[in-house]
Amino acid sequence: MADPRFYSVSGPFSLGHLAEISGAVIGDSADSEKLFYDVAPLSTAQVDQISFWDNKLYIDEFKSSQAGACLVRPDVKPVSDQMALLKTPDPYTAYAQIAQAFYPESSLKANHSKSAAIDPSAEIGAHCQIAAGAVIGSRVKIGEKTQIGENAVIADGVEIGADCLIGPHVTIQKSLIGNRVVLHPGVRVGQDGFGFALSEKGHAKVPQLGRVIIEDDVEIGANSTIDRGAGPDTVIGQGTKIDNLVQIAHNVNIGRNCIIVSQVGISGSTKIGDFVIMGGQAGLTGHLTIGDGVQIAAQAGVMRDIEPGQKVGGTPAVPMRQWLKSAALMEKLLKSDKKS
Amino acid sequence: MADPRFYSVSGPFSLGHLAEISGAVIGDSADSEKLFYDVAPLSTAQVDQISFWDNKLYIDEFKSSQAGACLVRPDVKPVSDQMALLKTPDPYTAYAQIAQAFYPESSLKANHSKSAAIDPSAEIGAHCQIAAGAVIGSRVKIGEKTQIGENAVIADGVEIGADCLIGPHVTIQKSLIGNRVVLHPGVRVGQDGFGFALSEKGHAKVPQLGRVIIEDDVEIGANSTIDRGAGPDTVIGQGTKIDNLVQIAHNVNIGRNCIIVSQVGISGSTKIGDFVIMGGQAGLTGHLTIGDGVQIAAQAGVMRDIEPGQKVGGTPAVPMRQWLKSAALMEKLLKSDKKS
Amino acid sequence: MADPRFYSVSGPFSLGHLAEISGAVIGDSADSEKLFYDVAPLSTAQVDQISFWDNKLYIDEFKSSQAGACLVRPDVKPVSDQMALLKTPDPYTAYAQIAQAFYPESSLKANHSKSAAIDPSAEIGAHCQIAAGAVIGSRVKIGEKTQIGENAVIADGVEIGADCLIGPHVTIQKSLIGNRVVLHPGVRVGQDGFGFALSEKGHAKVPQLGRVIIEDDVEIGANSTIDRGAGPDTVIGQGTKIDNLVQIAHNVNIGRNCIIVSQVGISGSTKIGDFVIMGGQAGLTGHLTIGDGVQIAAQAGVMRDIEPGQKVGGTPAVPMRQWLKSAALMEKLLKSDKKS
Repeated sequence: MADPRFYSVSGPFSLGHLAEISGAVIGDSADSEKLFYDVAPLSTAQVDQISFWDNKLYIDEFKSSQAGACLVRPDVKPVSDQMALLKTPDPYTAYAQIAQAFYPESSLKANHSKSAAIDPSAEIGAHCQIAAGAVIGSRVKIGEKTQIGENAVIADGVEIGADCLIGPHVTIQKSLIGNRVVLHPGVRVGQDGFGFALSEKGHAKVPQLGRVIIEDDVEIGANSTIDRGAGPDTVIGQGTKIDNLVQIAHNVNIGRNCIIVSQVGISGSTKIGDFVIMGGQAGLTGHLTIGDGVQIAAQAGVMRDIEPGQKVGGTPAVPMRQWLKSAALMEKLLKSDKKS
Repeated sequence: MADPRFYSVSGPFSLGHLAEISGAVIGDSADSEKLFYDVAPLSTAQVDQISFWDNKLYIDEFKSSQAGACLVRPDVKPVSDQMALLKTPDPYTAYAQIAQAFYPESSLKANHSKSAAIDPSAEIGAHCQIAAGAVIGSRVKIGEKTQIGENAVIADGVEIGADCLIGPHVTIQKSLIGNRVVLHPGVRVGQDGFGFALSEKGHAKVPQLGRVIIEDDVEIGANSTIDRGAGPDTVIGQGTKIDNLVQIAHNVNIGRNCIIVSQVGISGSTKIGDFVIMGGQAGLTGHLTIGDGVQIAAQAGVMRDIEPGQKVGGTPAVPMRQWLKSAALMEKLLKSDKKS
Repeated sequence: MADPRFYSVSGPFSLGHLAEISGAVIGDSADSEKLFYDVAPLSTAQVDQISFWDNKLYIDEFKSSQAGACLVRPDVKPVSDQMALLKTPDPYTAYAQIAQAFYPESSLKANHSKSAAIDPSAEIGAHCQIAAGAVIGSRVKIGEKTQIGENAVIADGVEIGADCLIGPHVTIQKSLIGNRVVLHPGVRVGQDGFGFALSEKGHAKVPQLGRVIIEDDVEIGANSTIDRGAGPDTVIGQGTKIDNLVQIAHNVNIGRNCIIVSQVGISGSTKIGDFVIMGGQAGLTGHLTIGDGVQIAAQAGVMRDIEPGQKVGGTPAVPMRQWLKSAALMEKLLKSDKKS
């Protein structure tokens, strides 16, 4: 069970209700009225808790689990009378939905702290929380039910949609933020891009005159940095999820539903398609075009455009199979070099 | 045009005034009295706006541009009667100067927020802004016209010069900062270096007794971290520009006018010359000496000293040509391996 | 001498006292009553200062040093009448102990700032400092003599031990922190892990229901991010030291006395043994097991389990000797390719 100092669990919910929430189908003979009190991993789940099994590697955990119910793929057979099966093509997504029901986002406090500094010209929607020490600049607009965390700074003119979670210590400047956006602590949005005209006499700063546009349902991890555009905007597309300590440079345009893992760096003016996945610490040079559905391995160094659907790895990045073969070939060469 | 929620444009300026600001020469027959109202990229510029052309790749954009004036290199010929040419050996630097005139740094508010916590012993120059929630420690000295952002923390004894922009959420400890320095949100300056005497019984902390010295005209990007020296100081030389999420370890000494791109890491006691350029995610081990004018490719891993003027890439870093040849050779070897 | 604007030196201490503090043995004929006023590097130390020599590379500095005393290994012979030798198997650890005596952590201010927002239900131990702008949530527990820095945010339910240094701008959520823990500015502890059920319809957020457990004597560098567990906890073991800008993902379990250098990234559910050392910018994929005493080179990309005591480098990481040979072999191949 989650630590009650930090979490409070909702429920109980009947098996039938959990099936409804998740779109799963209850297996033969299971009692849809039976109550469930929590989610839990296969290895620790009890008879009044629900778990999920989605990865063949964990078949032993599944077979020996004491869970009272388990989300599984449609072709899975029952392993005990005790465990009801909830069948779905995507058990992990179904689990996410059920876990959200047991652990909804903490209820809004919906107050404005006395120690927050809110400019009188700001327009703040109903049921918003503005936490202690937060600073809200002039002409800022914030939608309903959005939370602004402790000591966050929302600079002049910024607009934020409804149902957003803006974490403590976040800084937002010169940006337009959609609905249901989550920014974790220390995210920096909208500062100057890294734009200088280089010269032997010293480097002249080029004014950065664009904005950051963050579309609906985006989530950005702790201490990540999103620079504003130099003239065009920097754009993060709808549903894209960005991990911690990621760098997004000026004018970058990221499509919808991308997954960008921790410590990735994307250089200026690069354009990323939809449903692109980037492993941790990957780096992309500037002015590239990365197609829809591209997958980039962790630590890859991408220096050329990538066609839609390609998988690449290595520095400089090459097709994934070539990268893996290179490593194998190098091992082979080392062995024959030793013999010679 | 830049979004008026975030930017206000100065001007208009006559073509003659723009030539004067940028040191460019007005081409034949252009009207130096004509007024210009904004800067814009070649592709969107209108007849009352000025643009620049510096990269041969964009020749089509130049030829079809509707801009009323364009900064170009001296040998460029006119392409239309509508577009006046402003000739200069360095169009991008000239553009930076003109854009700065249209979009000067926002005028100072020059007040001290009531919610700032300013120690009575601090000496704050004329026309400074101390924003909401900022904390200014004892004996701090701040020069004229410097701005301290929201919730920034300037610890005891720190000295900051004139005309600096210290962003929101910046932390500065045990440091001396020059004039016209820009620190973006979340920059950490002057915390303990990573100094431990390793031992099987546990690692003993070595007191870090130096400072950080940041010279004039330095700019440091969001969430970058500059540790103070262990005994000697950590130094960032005049005019050096550092991007976001960069790590500078204790005792590092960086020369003048370097360009250090995002997510670079420089290990302790490494000494960097003047005008060095480092691509994103490059890493340098400790106690190295990197000569003037060295260029280090993105993601390079530098483990040895580098002579002035060299270009290197790869991990471990080798001369750039060798690195590029290695990648080509590996491709060749893979092909012949496949055949054999 | 350390800059008196930032440091005040304790002492003087007699040679006998310094030997006692550090467990070192005074060499023949040295005067144990002689007073010392400071620590200093070999090259600048004066006759009333103590230095250390631990690295053969610096033998010239040792021989010409004006230091009045020097910590050395047991087999070192005197080089001048002026310099007393303090003999110990580990001069750098002994130096750390002596430097700590000259420069103890700054004395506690032990007050609660009026501008701090402290929830009435929080339990704060004796002699704690709660600095300006700090926010302490409901039911927070803080041990004796712990310092909470300016504008730090300690969220509801968090527990922190005694003698901790929590820096300015730190955020802590859903975490239990031990004693003598040091968190540098901008560290983010306990935010949501990066957990999504990926799907073509968009990615569903998986509630993150675990905590972060930080054991005694851990130190974490500026702007590092430690996500909380998804169900299990994220754990940082006793005595482990983490540098700046490091990413620790959900469910990671790090053993005791590890050294993790700047910009390392460790992916979810990876388990690290004791006394593991990771060079800067190394990356580890998820669900790995890394044995005790493993050493991972800077920028390495680790994709497989590593047995205890192994040293690895490269991406994908291989045994260190193989990695170094690969680089040498590539150079050889390039030369023969040129000839052919």
